[in-house]
Amino acid sequence: MQLRQSPVADRDVRSVVILGATGSIGRSTAEIIAGAGGAFRVEAIAGGRDPQALARLARELGAKFAALADPRGYAELKEALAGTSIEPAAGEEAVVAAALRPSDIVMGAIAGTAGVKPTFAALSAGRTVALANKECLVCAGAPFMHQAAASGTRLLPVDSEHNAIFQSMGEASLDTIEMITLTASGGPFWTWPSEAIAKATPKQALAHPNWSMGPKISVDSAGLMNKGLEVIEAHYLFGIEAARLDVIVHAQSVVHGLVAFTDGSVTAGLAAPDMKVPIAYCLSFPKRSATAARRLDLTTVGRLTFERPDFDRFPALRVAIAALRTGGGLPTVLNAANEIAVEAFLKRLISFYEIAQMVEQACNTALADGVAHEPESVADALAMDQAVRERSRFVLARQAASRARVQ
Amino acid sequence: MQLRQSPVADRDVRSVVILGATGSIGRSTAEIIAGAGGAFRVEAIAGGRDPQALARLARELGAKFAALADPRGYAELKEALAGTSIEPAAGEEAVVAAALRPSDIVMGAIAGTAGVKPTFAALSAGRTVALANKECLVCAGAPFMHQAAASGTRLLPVDSEHNAIFQSMGEASLDTIEMITLTASGGPFWTWPSEAIAKATPKQALAHPNWSMGPKISVDSAGLMNKGLEVIEAHYLFGIEAARLDVIVHAQSVVHGLVAFTDGSVTAGLAAPDMKVPIAYCLSFPKRSATAARRLDLTTVGRLTFERPDFDRFPALRVAIAALRTGGGLPTVLNAANEIAVEAFLKRLISFYEIAQMVEQACNTALADGVAHEPESVADALAMDQAVRERSRFVLARQAASRARVQ
Repeated sequence: MQLRQSPVADRDVRSVVILGATGSIGRSTAEIIAGAGGAFRVEAIAGGRDPQALARLARELGAKFAALADPRGYAELKEALAGTSIEPAAGEEAVVAAALRPSDIVMGAIAGTAGVKPTFAALSAGRTVALANKECLVCAGAPFMHQAAASGTRLLPVDSEHNAIFQSMGEASLDTIEMITLTASGGPFWTWPSEAIAKATPKQALAHPNWSMGPKISVDSAGLMNKGLEVIEAHYLFGIEAARLDVIVHAQSVVHGLVAFTDGSVTAGLAAPDMKVPIAYCLSFPKRSATAARRLDLTTVGRLTFERPDFDRFPALRVAIAALRTGGGLPTVLNAANEIAVEAFLKRLISFYEIAQMVEQACNTALADGVAHEPESVADALAMDQAVRERSRFVLARQAASRARVQ
Repeated sequence: MQLRQSPVADRDVRSVVILGATGSIGRSTAEIIAGAGGAFRVEAIAGGRDPQALARLARELGAKFAALADPRGYAELKEALAGTSIEPAAGEEAVVAAALRPSDIVMGAIAGTAGVKPTFAALSAGRTVALANKECLVCAGAPFMHQAAASGTRLLPVDSEHNAIFQSMGEASLDTIEMITLTASGGPFWTWPSEAIAKATPKQALAHPNWSMGPKISVDSAGLMNKGLEVIEAHYLFGIEAARLDVIVHAQSVVHGLVAFTDGSVTAGLAAPDMKVPIAYCLSFPKRSATAARRLDLTTVGRLTFERPDFDRFPALRVAIAALRTGGGLPTVLNAANEIAVEAFLKRLISFYEIAQMVEQACNTALADGVAHEPESVADALAMDQAVRERSRFVLARQAASRARVQ
């Protein structure tokens, strides 16, 4: 089948803002836009710390505005864009300004908590947001969904699991849904005994079998914490309670999500493990556009397996689901504590299982201290996030000191 | 999860006509209606030849009208319904009258060519038809789809494969669809070498691994002719050409159909192999109702396999797809010749592979004789069907005579 790349009428051209343009999702987004034969026009892009990469991408995409989060890179960005009509800017406010440029869709692909403010700004301005950032919903799910409803706009999930579920749900009303299931690949440790997982090194945790991802998300995947965070995201995104959210382990990463209805029907979203598929879906929603993304051939895959997750060997998933069931601000706490714990694991300060232990302890401490209320605003969520990070760092420092004393 | 069976407001009660009420699909339909807590009201039912079974069902369902196709059963039906307000009737016209009673949905579940006229009558009267009869679309696909368009009504597929595809497509436009895939269980002979299939007996052909069905459809399944007929149905139902229709063998019968989009996304329809699932879907469409149908648990199934079909060992599938690609009236010819051939196989007059051979020969003869035009009307299709049956019977008789002479 040939790609349909007939000339696009001006009024059909969709204008796009890409937040996190120099990251993995941002670059895939740029590739799809470049291959779409003029179906998209890039209004603005924003990147983190690399002025050269941002300038190159802005030129390639013909963006009107390029914002670098790191203010120190302004001069270099300006110089790299000299002689073009692309407007350079730098600093946190510049990224928010990029998010607010007029557009049909904003790709929210800034990694980590840094993505929360600019993505929220886009949503508040009524933009349709393709969401590739986990923290927006895990850290500040309630404020985000309230704002989406208030702005009368939609959050389109880029994550392959949520995208598959979104496509499988169609316009179904929630009361016809019996269960939403996210699949997990199981990660590199799925077949390991717990004794081996306990001793796992960062290098082993980073060797994901199906997806090539950054270190934070790779460690999250290895412990199934990533799936726990995704269950939390699904809760906010689809407005469905924890009891109707399930996880199954599916090593081949071909079926990404399933929706079981009250009549016994199940609809599933499948695709080859290629992020271009959900990105293209979100960019063109509610239409679809032809892509050169990898195609799924089930007869080549041959065999799909499905297993129940193991909460004993993968306690992080249990801890995340428990946080969602308890509710309030625990997802915010969980997310912040997990980032610090993963950082500590990557620096070899704590063992693999200590990640889940630290996170669980942070949740218990927040509950005991009565500081786990549901965040009322993004600012509230970010303040909670900050407090938990500081406390987690303090706990780590105290542990390190106590270990040093013992030795 | 509890079934939701709250009292149903009168205006929300859906009135149903069941054609083929005493058959397997009809009885499952009756079960769903009986368990739906008043969500449905049965206006009329029609059955074939069993007045007692029809009368019993009419009483149970509180139908207003009960029609028996066999006129000889009228007296017995009338007696069995004495003392009730259920109106009895018999004969072909009575079945059409049942189809035309006012209703929100007509379940078209009469087996074989007998289902064509009453189902077409319902469609012509603007009824929404849940279609469980293959012949309507294989024998008279073009007239049916023209009439559905002219009546501004919808054909809802009950067949599990088409139902899964219908659910997976949602409101997608055809130009966004790259491929529609129907799965086949492979039937009882999937793992057999061709030498063994050549000698297969009716008893062996009737031993289907996943579904319990009548003899005709079981033999069709054993040779994958059934999947070929379903590909033809899918062509008419979804208005999509043969090149975008694929078949894969999936022994577990859990994934029933898949829709691959031009952006690389694939949506699939899954369910436990229980016809109550698609029946319930059609009865409530576009809403959904809770059922007690079997639930699918992928972790219990554990493993799903997918293979390419083998056209050498299963020539019937090749013959059916070739008929669709040639088009015109060949699907009509194929369907009629196949019924006679299967009948002959079940009577042990011909071998298993002779089914596909006879069908292919009938298609070639029709082409050579220039009598394979696309049927212009249901009457035209039925006349073609009749002519092919007569010719096929003649061919069989001639063969039998020639074999007798040889012996």
